[in-house]
Amino acid sequence: MDQPLILDGLRVAEDIKRKVKEKVAGLKEKGIVPCLATILVGDDPSSATYVRMKGNACRKLGIESIRIHLPKETTTEELLATIHELNDRDDVHGILLQHPVPSHIDERKAFEAIHIDKDVDGVTSLGYGQSAFGFGLYPSCTPAAILSIMDYYQLPIAGKHAVVIGRSPILGKPVSQLLLNRNATVTICHSYTQNLEHHVKQADIVVAAVGKPRFVQGDWIKPGAVILDAGYNKGNIGDVDYDACVAKSGAITPVPGGVGPVTIATLVKHTVEAAERKATLQAQ
Amino acid sequence: MDQPLILDGLRVAEDIKRKVKEKVAGLKEKGIVPCLATILVGDDPSSATYVRMKGNACRKLGIESIRIHLPKETTTEELLATIHELNDRDDVHGILLQHPVPSHIDERKAFEAIHIDKDVDGVTSLGYGQSAFGFGLYPSCTPAAILSIMDYYQLPIAGKHAVVIGRSPILGKPVSQLLLNRNATVTICHSYTQNLEHHVKQADIVVAAVGKPRFVQGDWIKPGAVILDAGYNKGNIGDVDYDACVAKSGAITPVPGGVGPVTIATLVKHTVEAAERKATLQAQ
Repeated sequence: MDQPLILDGLRVAEDIKRKVKEKVAGLKEKGIVPCLATILVGDDPSSATYVRMKGNACRKLGIESIRIHLPKETTTEELLATIHELNDRDDVHGILLQHPVPSHIDERKAFEAIHIDKDVDGVTSLGYGQSAFGFGLYPSCTPAAILSIMDYYQLPIAGKHAVVIGRSPILGKPVSQLLLNRNATVTICHSYTQNLEHHVKQADIVVAAVGKPRFVQGDWIKPGAVILDAGYNKGNIGDVDYDACVAKSGAITPVPGGVGPVTIATLVKHTVEAAERKATLQAQ
Repeated sequence: MDQPLILDGLRVAEDIKRKVKEKVAGLKEKGIVPCLATILVGDDPSSATYVRMKGNACRKLGIESIRIHLPKETTTEELLATIHELNDRDDVHGILLQHPVPSHIDERKAFEAIHIDKDVDGVTSLGYGQSAFGFGLYPSCTPAAILSIMDYYQLPIAGKHAVVIGRSPILGKPVSQLLLNRNATVTICHSYTQNLEHHVKQADIVVAAVGKPRFVQGDWIKPGAVILDAGYNKGNIGDVDYDACVAKSGAITPVPGGVGPVTIATLVKHTVEAAERKATLQAQ
């Protein structure tokens, strides 16, 4: 068998960022600076790191980043008020609410409050529905990143059998819809799935989005399968037992350096697209 | 093997209608008459029949039905204007735009124009997203009908492997999401699926939503599988080769008398729920 292809997320992210830079330069000529507002509620250290990484990625590309840090006692109403304010601000093109928020907050209600034009992280039910129906502007970032990696490496999707493990609103569900729209046959597995191994063994494409370290085992993998690991567990460990799976796979994303950096690049890309779209609409 | 259970859609529909009648009576005491507006564009005889059936089902249960019939030359803009008018009307609780509209009209744009509160047929991307995320009010009617039939006959869903053939926005996609939310493992197949038979053979639950007469073959069926035939082709023929499949199945919907009548009952039920919800919101 051929050597497995290691899918280098940093390379894909660089490719996306190169195009983003060009767009940012074009917008600056028109006097427009794209701007992402990030909202962090509470003091979870991983969440704080993620938000910082996203803000830094923006600034490196000349994109404004407004960081809003709310105390952990913030109420749903207060968070909604912040989101509404950002919806109304002319200089803000994208809004990212870092998941998870403290458990006393109605997170879904907060996500739903983000205006569709600024939902660059792809978290609203409307954005999900539009993407599922094939006309969404900003699909959820990790699912979009997975597709970008496959496209960058020209891995075929149409007619392939994709097995997605996980069904969260920002990962398992939307990646299933994107793969389906690219003409894959899609199986969605989750905690109630019986005989998960049996399903994964049939997959040409495996998307691991389950949130459990090294969950996907080497002997579950059909030889030559493409493995996309969207997991990011403590200690930089993915949802896939990489060492056990790599040799059997046809192509695989490592963790770190796989889906993660492409997700962040996608968020930045969506923010710039939102700024471009607004400029186009205003010029009309 | 046990005799297959024939899933009697008329019986399920009667059960739904009985509850609808009670709700209608309750609303009438408050001086509210639920009202469904149906829009038919053009002269397709099957579409005209469907719209008439839906209107009749309403009237039999004491629900008002406004039938709007637009000529086949109607433009997208004219259709949108009609929908906006119905959105604004206080006496209209649900809006049904009969699919398909003439090909020169942007059908998706028209569907999307229906206000979410009146989207009793479950056609908007927002309604789809909300149902997929588990908090939708009015899922697409045929998918909801399929779930109602399974629930009426107490057929288990959680942990079962459901194979859905078809991925339309009003049928294959939403039924996949509803089954997924009820903890089935779900595989979505379509025209690009390779070796469809192989997938269907593994299914505990088969949903046929492909729009091709007698498409699903008897030797594709795993013994004891539950078969839900959402097809309704010319000459009252389903998507399943009933005679070939019935003996192998554990339970099966016939055509006619299966999913069809429950779909109509579901539309009526959603309309009454929309009227109830509006009354509740106004009372607050």
